[in-house]
Amino acid sequence: MIKAVLSVCLVLVAVSSTFGKYIPKTGKRIPQTLSRGWGDQLIWAQTYEEGLFWSRSRNKPLVVIFHLEDCPHSKAVKKVFSEDNEIQKMLDEDFIVLNLVYETTDKHLSPDGQYVPRIIFVDPTMTVRADITGRYSNRMYAYEPNDIKLLMSNMQKAKKLLKSEL
Amino acid sequence: MIKAVLSVCLVLVAVSSTFGKYIPKTGKRIPQTLSRGWGDQLIWAQTYEEGLFWSRSRNKPLVVIFHLEDCPHSKAVKKVFSEDNEIQKMLDEDFIVLNLVYETTDKHLSPDGQYVPRIIFVDPTMTVRADITGRYSNRMYAYEPNDIKLLMSNMQKAKKLLKSEL
Repeated sequence: MIKAVLSVCLVLVAVSSTFGKYIPKTGKRIPQTLSRGWGDQLIWAQTYEEGLFWSRSRNKPLVVIFHLEDCPHSKAVKKVFSEDNEIQKMLDEDFIVLNLVYETTDKHLSPDGQYVPRIIFVDPTMTVRADITGRYSNRMYAYEPNDIKLLMSNMQKAKKLLKSEL
Repeated sequence: MIKAVLSVCLVLVAVSSTFGKYIPKTGKRIPQTLSRGWGDQLIWAQTYEEGLFWSRSRNKPLVVIFHLEDCPHSKAVKKVFSEDNEIQKMLDEDFIVLNLVYETTDKHLSPDGQYVPRIIFVDPTMTVRADITGRYSNRMYAYEPNDIKLLMSNMQKAKKLLKSEL
């Protein structure tokens, strides 16, 4: 009797794996996350338009991180950034966050060119804060792992919102 | 001795939880996926620009799914769509996929208005296939769970690429 039950179970397992979820020929993939490793606990906007919408409606500045998943400089900053609880907390509570591996069509997001990693702040008035820069005069919006304190003080700057021009 | 080892372990646990990853006040969140439940094994574009880029460079049509996470109609189609292995396989192998919970600024993606769920095909020539429609004359790009066969035949249509106008 036990044997009979067992074989029914085995049949069920076989059936459920045949009719199971689609698996690509190249093998099962890990689902992509919107965070891409920059902070799994943050609520990420998917697109720049969505980020702007949330920024305006919640009156919080938007942070846009341009990066590439196979760029060692991006990865190095990402590691420090995602492991810094103070940054993560401030981002979660006071900012709208967006990370992009593609450039947008909006030229204001590349004040001195398109490069990665590049971190740009946008005020809820939809003004790109080109005045909030990092340490490097040739790539003003780039940060390296050692610049994390500067990044944090730039976040504090961005939290002081511009007055609405209306 | 065992007691001593135990208390060291407890101290280590306490330390590691203090210095652990950031957890929001409202509790730990499940990381957001780019698939949003429409197929965890597919490789999703994040933005329309990215989708168009991959569509052109790989010469595959782009599918854009407009939906809302708390819309029952979207959810119903999503369930059938994500569980249909034939659709998932075809999407994975022959299409570029994008799902959006926000409208883009491109009006061509809303030929008869902005509503969800709405599925729009775009040819690699960057032409929106307004000719590939569902069953409903008032919402031509809407699909319901029963329309999954029609959706599949529309995918076959979209795979027959338009000739390049060049």
